[in-house]
Amino acid sequence: VLFDGTYGRGQTAAALSGTAWLQALLDVEASLARATAAAGLIPPAAAARIAEACRAERFSVEEIAREAAAHATVVIPLVAALREAVGPDDRDHVHLGATSQDVLDSATMLLAGRALDALLADAEAVAAAARGLAAAHRETPVIGRTLLQQALPTSFGLRAAGWMRGVEEAAGQLAAIRDGGLPVQMGGAVGRRGPQVADLVAADLGLAPAPLPWHAVRVPVGRLAGALGVLAGVLAKIARDVTLSAQDEVGELREGGERRGGSSAMAHKRNPVAAVSVLACTRRVPGLVVTLLAGMEQEHERAAGAWQAEWGTLSDLLTLTGSATAWARDLLERLVVDPERMRRNLDRFHAASGRQGGVGDGLRDAAALIDRALAAGGEASG
Amino acid sequence: VLFDGTYGRGQTAAALSGTAWLQALLDVEASLARATAAAGLIPPAAAARIAEACRAERFSVEEIAREAAAHATVVIPLVAALREAVGPDDRDHVHLGATSQDVLDSATMLLAGRALDALLADAEAVAAAARGLAAAHRETPVIGRTLLQQALPTSFGLRAAGWMRGVEEAAGQLAAIRDGGLPVQMGGAVGRRGPQVADLVAADLGLAPAPLPWHAVRVPVGRLAGALGVLAGVLAKIARDVTLSAQDEVGELREGGERRGGSSAMAHKRNPVAAVSVLACTRRVPGLVVTLLAGMEQEHERAAGAWQAEWGTLSDLLTLTGSATAWARDLLERLVVDPERMRRNLDRFHAASGRQGGVGDGLRDAAALIDRALAAGGEASG
Amino acid sequence: VLFDGTYGRGQTAAALSGTAWLQALLDVEASLARATAAAGLIPPAAAARIAEACRAERFSVEEIAREAAAHATVVIPLVAALREAVGPDDRDHVHLGATSQDVLDSATMLLAGRALDALLADAEAVAAAARGLAAAHRETPVIGRTLLQQALPTSFGLRAAGWMRGVEEAAGQLAAIRDGGLPVQMGGAVGRRGPQVADLVAADLGLAPAPLPWHAVRVPVGRLAGALGVLAGVLAKIARDVTLSAQDEVGELREGGERRGGSSAMAHKRNPVAAVSVLACTRRVPGLVVTLLAGMEQEHERAAGAWQAEWGTLSDLLTLTGSATAWARDLLERLVVDPERMRRNLDRFHAASGRQGGVGDGLRDAAALIDRALAAGGEASG
Amino acid sequence: VLFDGTYGRGQTAAALSGTAWLQALLDVEASLARATAAAGLIPPAAAARIAEACRAERFSVEEIAREAAAHATVVIPLVAALREAVGPDDRDHVHLGATSQDVLDSATMLLAGRALDALLADAEAVAAAARGLAAAHRETPVIGRTLLQQALPTSFGLRAAGWMRGVEEAAGQLAAIRDGGLPVQMGGAVGRRGPQVADLVAADLGLAPAPLPWHAVRVPVGRLAGALGVLAGVLAKIARDVTLSAQDEVGELREGGERRGGSSAMAHKRNPVAAVSVLACTRRVPGLVVTLLAGMEQEHERAAGAWQAEWGTLSDLLTLTGSATAWARDLLERLVVDPERMRRNLDRFHAASGRQGGVGDGLRDAAALIDRALAAGGEASG
Repeated sequence: VLFDGTYGRGQTAAALSGTAWLQALLDVEASLARATAAAGLIPPAAAARIAEACRAERFSVEEIAREAAAHATVVIPLVAALREAVGPDDRDHVHLGATSQDVLDSATMLLAGRALDALLADAEAVAAAARGLAAAHRETPVIGRTLLQQALPTSFGLRAAGWMRGVEEAAGQLAAIRDGGLPVQMGGAVGRRGPQVADLVAADLGLAPAPLPWHAVRVPVGRLAGALGVLAGVLAKIARDVTLSAQDEVGELREGGERRGGSSAMAHKRNPVAAVSVLACTRRVPGLVVTLLAGMEQEHERAAGAWQAEWGTLSDLLTLTGSATAWARDLLERLVVDPERMRRNLDRFHAASGRQGGVGDGLRDAAALIDRALAAGGEASG
Repeated sequence: VLFDGTYGRGQTAAALSGTAWLQALLDVEASLARATAAAGLIPPAAAARIAEACRAERFSVEEIAREAAAHATVVIPLVAALREAVGPDDRDHVHLGATSQDVLDSATMLLAGRALDALLADAEAVAAAARGLAAAHRETPVIGRTLLQQALPTSFGLRAAGWMRGVEEAAGQLAAIRDGGLPVQMGGAVGRRGPQVADLVAADLGLAPAPLPWHAVRVPVGRLAGALGVLAGVLAKIARDVTLSAQDEVGELREGGERRGGSSAMAHKRNPVAAVSVLACTRRVPGLVVTLLAGMEQEHERAAGAWQAEWGTLSDLLTLTGSATAWARDLLERLVVDPERMRRNLDRFHAASGRQGGVGDGLRDAAALIDRALAAGGEASG
Repeated sequence: VLFDGTYGRGQTAAALSGTAWLQALLDVEASLARATAAAGLIPPAAAARIAEACRAERFSVEEIAREAAAHATVVIPLVAALREAVGPDDRDHVHLGATSQDVLDSATMLLAGRALDALLADAEAVAAAARGLAAAHRETPVIGRTLLQQALPTSFGLRAAGWMRGVEEAAGQLAAIRDGGLPVQMGGAVGRRGPQVADLVAADLGLAPAPLPWHAVRVPVGRLAGALGVLAGVLAKIARDVTLSAQDEVGELREGGERRGGSSAMAHKRNPVAAVSVLACTRRVPGLVVTLLAGMEQEHERAAGAWQAEWGTLSDLLTLTGSATAWARDLLERLVVDPERMRRNLDRFHAASGRQGGVGDGLRDAAALIDRALAAGGEASG
Repeated sequence: VLFDGTYGRGQTAAALSGTAWLQALLDVEASLARATAAAGLIPPAAAARIAEACRAERFSVEEIAREAAAHATVVIPLVAALREAVGPDDRDHVHLGATSQDVLDSATMLLAGRALDALLADAEAVAAAARGLAAAHRETPVIGRTLLQQALPTSFGLRAAGWMRGVEEAAGQLAAIRDGGLPVQMGGAVGRRGPQVADLVAADLGLAPAPLPWHAVRVPVGRLAGALGVLAGVLAKIARDVTLSAQDEVGELREGGERRGGSSAMAHKRNPVAAVSVLACTRRVPGLVVTLLAGMEQEHERAAGAWQAEWGTLSDLLTLTGSATAWARDLLERLVVDPERMRRNLDRFHAASGRQGGVGDGLRDAAALIDRALAAGGEASG
């Protein structure tokens, strides 16, 4: 909590709070009630009353968390509390034919979709800001650097176009997952429940249908994890470039915005807070991805440990990637470019290499590449 | 080398040997020569002579490896050796306008494509074997197990259908990457070379065109790594199920094949060698994925360290995932199912739970799910 | 929060709450005030008033978290709030000569020590319970299993002795770190503050003195991370053995305790909740260790990203390892051993291998090893 | 192989070659023969003949690797080949009472010790070079940098002292492991063999005795992995500092040595090859550590997959950390310091901050810290 300013920026974190988790679980129970009613298994009126009861504010996150310890799942105490809430007539209609994992996995996919909505809105803004930089600096010369050494001139717009393209590609993969890769789970105790109810729940919640239950075949989780890892990697690249370019001795970029990054002890200093915060989040991402990929080794019809390790890991992974995206948006939307310092650093190159100052040909090539990327990028992210 | 029997099974490992790497690098140089000739930058006859010289057997892997140390890239000594090989008239036509990373990245994508060809052939065979098991055991009852405890009856075919589906999904993502997600790299020293030559090289080598150079925006690497990690995760799930089902006390599955898995000290023992070997490989995969994802934080136009860490990591990742796939094929194509032991283990459940023996309804549901998966799966992997 | 029943068992989690973090930061500020007073840099009365103000309940975790975003450190708003709290006469005596990282790193070490106190108390109980099992089952025959196949008879006590020894070794390393490997940080803005104040703060807080500031040389963090990873690995081994031994078809071990692990849908089922919860925690640990080790690549006098990624990661790592230890204690203190099932599973081995039932020699060897381990273990953990 | 110039520098890689592995396995068999003879279990003459046959050049790495596939262990074909080599009279005296894992684990520890000898010799040289820099630049002013921004002046010697201290601490932990933390494994099929033979083998091979077999309690592996990860982290910190300081715009450090790091396309450019190579190796390390830590979850008396994943992983981990150490030695022993550029960069700070040029007080503090570290370091690493 204390570090949420860094790790929980933007809307993604809120989409994954304890209350948000609780509501998502209840949304699945409500949807299941509607689906079982539609399938003729419970009375429609009962489904309506159950759905009415499925509001997070009626339950206590702390209490359910505490009781969950005895079961290694929060769904058992939640269903008990929900049955209590609906009363004796409806209690047997709650959670009909479902297993804990059905509810938890479906809720996870629901939350992932909500988190991705927030995250992708920020990612689009990051890409748009990079696009703006690429267009504005098509022919702003900057020294290209390889292995952290001055190499040959290029244009700053080309570097920004690379950022744009990377974000677009990574976000495009996440958007595809959001739009078709978050499947419902509703297979019952050992995954052999017929698909009728599952398909109804999927349609109701906006999840993808599942050809088969995936209780222990965790492709949806692994794929989502990988795609989040790729986006985090691109954001890290951008933030790393900015921190390097913002070094006093380089001075080509700096963070904009008011009163940000001041140092109490050193008044002259201006820290690249947004870029550092991007990195603070992205550095934590690969370790979470590895946990989810290693956790795909799950036993039989439900894993003893690997599944239970996913809950917090995926939650953290979405939160941190979302926070990194929000910080990156903040960073690029306010980024201050200093073409004059870029020019002066180029002069050093010209002096050291003995080359003349003309960088015109290179810039024309760079501008042509940028134009192609701006055109292609628009389609890719559309 | 000593452990290649475990880690390097099948054809994927051979696709990533030192000689295979060398040939891929030379293939790129040859293609670049043809492309620069087509662009009118060098004489066609020179391109033909260069291409003729680009045969791995003319060069020494060990010698190039040794000289590479002084440059942190194998391309510099390789280009020097190639220039030596073509002689004074053509030497200036070699490697024209390219940077080391162009050649190494394009070669990496070329090798990845070749490795994926081998790997996906085995993955298709794994999926087909799982499909066969699913069809053959549509109604073979087995106790479903959750948290490693007996839960409720299901059919073994449904578990196998889950394996099939997982492999199909994971392999489908890799096939999509092979067919359009392995881009050429040919941007020159700082990535601003115009696209003409790059597009020609891409077409010549069967790589995807790159809207922009991606020297330091490593989405193609990250995406490939994630997809390999997902396939490894599915294979690990299958192998884990088999090792558990092959326990003497369970006895529902065992590995087939002759003289495999004998123990020198314990003649009665039959080790699940293929399943264990799958796991020996898949357990090594997530740690390699994490290195590649963390390594996406690359500086400016070429990274100082993160890029150079990719070479061996991606090579190992492809090799190990390929080996796991070959072992999984071996495993599933010879898997021996024991319906009688499945039945006896079910009897224990019936005795413990006090339920009657009828599992008919559940099996009909399971069979319907299998049929749906067999139909859907065919499309997904097609 | 919702999953704290699984991930936050025992006392370690409480030691790392937002409030606990806040208090630890304030403890460092109070100690710094006393140290600067002792060094004659501020009036003793001012130090007393500052220390008096350093109580977490006087500040708001949420508010400081919110304001921290603009600085990428919680210390800047905390120091501002503390200066506000002490009033105009003392405000300049607060935080004298320190940098944010001094306070945050020292607080981290302080919290790590407190968390380790809780964790090691549980670890000692785990080792004691394993010791009890080893002593009680010195000669209880069980079939040894290799590659998940029946191999040769051994004694269950020997397996438990291995658990004991592993926990003792891993806990011993953590105890050594707690007792001398948690150094103070008090080097000032760029780490060149003289050692006088730092040594005073170290003595006051019970931290180890630091020969040099370690702002960007993160050996203490990496070493702690590795040692936590090793303990988690041993606990995972124990829990894995229990889940396997608790399979219905094996039945050699089961979890004790009342009303634990019941299934709502399957009344006959008894889930190994404690073992599964151990694994739910330990599976998350290696991914956190990798983040901290990779994060040791820190720039110059303070890192831009890698340091800021540590805060949440180390907090989670301590919490999860602590929770795993608490769950393991719960598991082993209530573990129910079934020698009769062990005997019956051995009979299967004798039938399959054609060997006679005599396991006497093997058990005597096992008992001798156990006796040696019980003796050695007592010293190692002392 | 092709990338060995980068990944396999120095003597550590050679200590882990296929032939080195083979010899280590044979060394264990020879030692076991001597030990069983000493215990009166086989004739001394037979032991001598077996030991005589245990020379790697008499066997084929490739052949044994190929045959190992069918057993998931190289020891079975190796023992078969060794029995063949010694002939019919002695064949039953080979490998007496041992299991494959005994030989492989003991050989692994033996190789780890040999690899650490090479690695630690380089690590001592790295520390010595850093010590030399610290002493030589006790009062060489440099601007301290935090978050990649100029902060306050310090001395370059203090930064080098931090490097020294980090290497000494990390190497000290590895030396302690080498000298007492590499235990023999000789427990027989299920780990209950009495300790007599094991103790003899340990003494003969210079390994630590094992109070209990650790076939599936992998503390020695996890501890070694963590310690290697810490050393790699320190080396990464050093190399990162150098790459940053070697930027053209900073210019405070550069790599020495002849004809290193030239660029074929850019004659003015001088790449920091050694620093980049350190990072190429260290970036691969954390992912290997995570595999070993996650792999500690091993079943019963021998794991089905997790153990078999260790062989290649630990081998790579030692090789890469060793290579990083050799590169770091190369880097620091030739490092060129430019006090004049340091001074000019400080001038920028003075101009920006409005502070006067006097940095004397700070340097005196820094020098005092350095002196303390030089004194303390000598003891710590002794």
